[in-house]
Amino acid sequence: MPSNPAPRPLADHACLIVHGKDRPGIVAAVSALITRHQGNIVAFDQYSDDPTGGAYFQRVVFHRPELAAALPEIEADLAETLGKGFDLEWSLTDQSTPKRMAILASKQDHCLLDLLWRHRRGDLPVSIPMVISNHTTSAEDVRSFGVPFFHVPSVAGPDKSASEAKIVELLRGNVDVVVLARYMQILSSDFLEQVGVPVINIHHSFLPAFIGADPYKKAKERGVKLIGATSHYVTADLDEGPIIEQDTVRVNHADSYEELVRRGADVERQVLSRAVLWHAQDRVLRHGNHTIVF
Amino acid sequence: MPSNPAPRPLADHACLIVHGKDRPGIVAAVSALITRHQGNIVAFDQYSDDPTGGAYFQRVVFHRPELAAALPEIEADLAETLGKGFDLEWSLTDQSTPKRMAILASKQDHCLLDLLWRHRRGDLPVSIPMVISNHTTSAEDVRSFGVPFFHVPSVAGPDKSASEAKIVELLRGNVDVVVLARYMQILSSDFLEQVGVPVINIHHSFLPAFIGADPYKKAKERGVKLIGATSHYVTADLDEGPIIEQDTVRVNHADSYEELVRRGADVERQVLSRAVLWHAQDRVLRHGNHTIVF
Amino acid sequence: MPSNPAPRPLADHACLIVHGKDRPGIVAAVSALITRHQGNIVAFDQYSDDPTGGAYFQRVVFHRPELAAALPEIEADLAETLGKGFDLEWSLTDQSTPKRMAILASKQDHCLLDLLWRHRRGDLPVSIPMVISNHTTSAEDVRSFGVPFFHVPSVAGPDKSASEAKIVELLRGNVDVVVLARYMQILSSDFLEQVGVPVINIHHSFLPAFIGADPYKKAKERGVKLIGATSHYVTADLDEGPIIEQDTVRVNHADSYEELVRRGADVERQVLSRAVLWHAQDRVLRHGNHTIVF
Amino acid sequence: MPSNPAPRPLADHACLIVHGKDRPGIVAAVSALITRHQGNIVAFDQYSDDPTGGAYFQRVVFHRPELAAALPEIEADLAETLGKGFDLEWSLTDQSTPKRMAILASKQDHCLLDLLWRHRRGDLPVSIPMVISNHTTSAEDVRSFGVPFFHVPSVAGPDKSASEAKIVELLRGNVDVVVLARYMQILSSDFLEQVGVPVINIHHSFLPAFIGADPYKKAKERGVKLIGATSHYVTADLDEGPIIEQDTVRVNHADSYEELVRRGADVERQVLSRAVLWHAQDRVLRHGNHTIVF
Repeated sequence: MPSNPAPRPLADHACLIVHGKDRPGIVAAVSALITRHQGNIVAFDQYSDDPTGGAYFQRVVFHRPELAAALPEIEADLAETLGKGFDLEWSLTDQSTPKRMAILASKQDHCLLDLLWRHRRGDLPVSIPMVISNHTTSAEDVRSFGVPFFHVPSVAGPDKSASEAKIVELLRGNVDVVVLARYMQILSSDFLEQVGVPVINIHHSFLPAFIGADPYKKAKERGVKLIGATSHYVTADLDEGPIIEQDTVRVNHADSYEELVRRGADVERQVLSRAVLWHAQDRVLRHGNHTIVF
Repeated sequence: MPSNPAPRPLADHACLIVHGKDRPGIVAAVSALITRHQGNIVAFDQYSDDPTGGAYFQRVVFHRPELAAALPEIEADLAETLGKGFDLEWSLTDQSTPKRMAILASKQDHCLLDLLWRHRRGDLPVSIPMVISNHTTSAEDVRSFGVPFFHVPSVAGPDKSASEAKIVELLRGNVDVVVLARYMQILSSDFLEQVGVPVINIHHSFLPAFIGADPYKKAKERGVKLIGATSHYVTADLDEGPIIEQDTVRVNHADSYEELVRRGADVERQVLSRAVLWHAQDRVLRHGNHTIVF
Repeated sequence: MPSNPAPRPLADHACLIVHGKDRPGIVAAVSALITRHQGNIVAFDQYSDDPTGGAYFQRVVFHRPELAAALPEIEADLAETLGKGFDLEWSLTDQSTPKRMAILASKQDHCLLDLLWRHRRGDLPVSIPMVISNHTTSAEDVRSFGVPFFHVPSVAGPDKSASEAKIVELLRGNVDVVVLARYMQILSSDFLEQVGVPVINIHHSFLPAFIGADPYKKAKERGVKLIGATSHYVTADLDEGPIIEQDTVRVNHADSYEELVRRGADVERQVLSRAVLWHAQDRVLRHGNHTIVF
Repeated sequence: MPSNPAPRPLADHACLIVHGKDRPGIVAAVSALITRHQGNIVAFDQYSDDPTGGAYFQRVVFHRPELAAALPEIEADLAETLGKGFDLEWSLTDQSTPKRMAILASKQDHCLLDLLWRHRRGDLPVSIPMVISNHTTSAEDVRSFGVPFFHVPSVAGPDKSASEAKIVELLRGNVDVVVLARYMQILSSDFLEQVGVPVINIHHSFLPAFIGADPYKKAKERGVKLIGATSHYVTADLDEGPIIEQDTVRVNHADSYEELVRRGADVERQVLSRAVLWHAQDRVLRHGNHTIVF
């Protein structure tokens, strides 16, 4: 099996993420540990921003027959070997368990439908327990995919706490990741804290160009020759979170604002779907305001 | 209005296509004609493969208030001025009338659904009177877009004339263009003749590389570093028709065959949707086995 | 001859640029004029941002045997027909006369050498009367191409008028366009005014992202997944002039700052060479802070 | 130091390549070995086409102070541990020793000069002991880079053994890799055998499209919308060797054959320079007719 198989949940495969301060011997220790638990490494990536004591990141996928039964023992060994021995942080996820992903959307449905369709095709190894929107326009479409739809209207005025509280109530404990598929509301830092899982956004520009509202309008005004899209983790600072993926597409002077919006929609769904897939596969590690994408 | 507005049907706009042997004065004659019929040129493209007597192609979009009423007079003038005066062929289409586009599909639904979505979004200025498939898998999806679905099963064995005849019966007189959205049956030259309208195909490789069946398998075997897709007009020679649009995407050694199929699906739908849009806007002119795309 | 022939000076070809307020009949008037002077149109592009009175732009290349002799008469007709009749501005250039292009550079030589190579290969239809640098490092290389090299050291401190005055002295009257090929000095608006010809710059980022100094450092800090380059006309506002061309290239977390610089160098020379070629072919029209690239 | 530092020779760094039949424990054995020789892993990549007994490939770069002194001991351990213990093939190269690269060229000099310039800039970690050409046109340019130039004229007629023999005489023992930078002679399999080092070619098409002579002419005839370039290892079968890198660039109907040649030249030099860099960094592993590029 090549390292990039079809993106489906993988029975008896575990993904181990390791990060901490780099020092000699980590690869040897991790691989010896996997070997002594009868694991066979099928993908291995590592990155260090400075081998002499910098930040170290590693992702290993290994196959181990009857993984579920062996997990407690492997985790105990990891805690001992990596946690105590090397002072590293680690997490181990069973690749047969898809992450639970909620999607938040507004009126624009191209990113939302693209994710639902990829999921139905089997190209996104997640489950989708719910879609939440501040509009009802997509309700029927979403439900036709067999996915529950919840309408949480936006509250007019600056105080969004009521609608945010309602969304938190729906999400909390039920999801492992939240995707903003052109959700046109700015989320408060309180919300992010209470949700407690990673939130992935798609911004319709090549960040850091055209931060904020209506980037295609700004792009038209500036006369750029390419437009782009950026998927990033959401932080309290608008459009400033760690970038997961970006791409651009060529435009020219004759393309109207509406044409930029139309072409941009294609880039947005491509970029968002790649970011979501990589997150679902535990390929994206955060490092301050950066990401390492293995 | 920029030359590339939103791709919607345009009221009181006409598209004039001219082709024939190049000679001095064609632009002057055409533009004078449009001016004397109170038309205002909003887009103008021309191409000649040799200004000293080569093949000449021109596309002009002009706005003319109350176009419908004026069309007969304009057409008479065109016949006189261009047909007789310059020995050129021409066609004039009212841009407010969308082309009627049938889609033929099989089990793979990514290109089919992509076209239906784009149409619903208002991004394809066509009408879709029917989808025909040799499988029933997409029936429900297609009808949820309000589009009629017809199932014409493929006939086993070499004689496909029965099923082709049934398809011709559905199409003839009802459509202006047929799109093969990963339709996995090879059409006979009899069929093409009887249908009598352009047929656009998407081939899942960068033609002329990997002609024929299962190009992703061939791509994996050859070890290419990019895969691609090609949209072309269908002719009697398999995968040899005039190319409308192509694109490629990067792959690597670790990508499995299934991963090539998955990534390729994205390129296919992008390439096909661009080709279909350009055809719908009368931007694609055929010249032997080539296309001029304005 | 196709519209995009090899980019060499073209004997007996003229390029007519027209711009002004759009109104019906411009195309007819221009093409009739060319026809009555025995010109044969080989390339024709037009753009209007609003056909009902917006800004209109047109570029026509036509072939006319013994062009030089006919130019005065054609120009008189243009002044009468377009200038008086339509209140349009126009310019007519003989395509057999290459533009005179000066290059300003500093220590980094990749853009400089790339332009010199392309010119020697016959891929840039310009003459290069001089290269000016504030360093002497490239002197020998430049002269090996048969191009004069002048060293004008930068003056320390804020007052650059002395070195700018020396550069103006070299340029004035001798060049039709100035290219800043990674010239690391900011030019004053006085300088731009005195030089009196278009100045083209290459900025090593995807503008408007990372304006100002050391954009690759900023790109590394922000953690972008693509880096880019932008070629634009220089105005008094740093990095704010009309964009001619842009492009991007993929990078990842593991790429060091030095690697970004190395990859960026390839994009810079591609983007700059395209912008310079298009300018040399009179394909780039300025419209406020935008460009129309035909 | 990130995994992709500037591509310069690296003091006290070794690159270990391992390949053979996959089995559990390889990563653990290799990393334990490096650790016990005081090596610190700075880059680690592995690939297996089937973890249950398929082909396994690994590339590890590690830092080890005073590497030269330690190499014999490390190699003895590798022979014992990997060779005998796991039945794997391996090779260890000192990254401070650049590979010796010869370039063969003909009249077209864009790929040749691009490699020489990148080398001078410090962007290719190789030495260039010689350039061989069947024409003398580039002699002066090559020598201006301080690189010896040898002229070996092509012999007319089918028997090329005389000129090939002369080239072999120049190369044998003096180089680690040969690059064909648009060298327009077909090399015999005898030649390849006698040279005994990898030979890298640039083919001016997107292989497997347009194999053989004058691919741009074939591309123009077929009416493709993208042209490309492919760098591959040379084998006895023309244009059939393992592909290292490919890329494409957009063209359209108006682009003349000469314009395809001009645009293609840019893709060729980009693609070839990437392939050569990766080979120089021991990133390219051959697997039958495929490459693994780490």
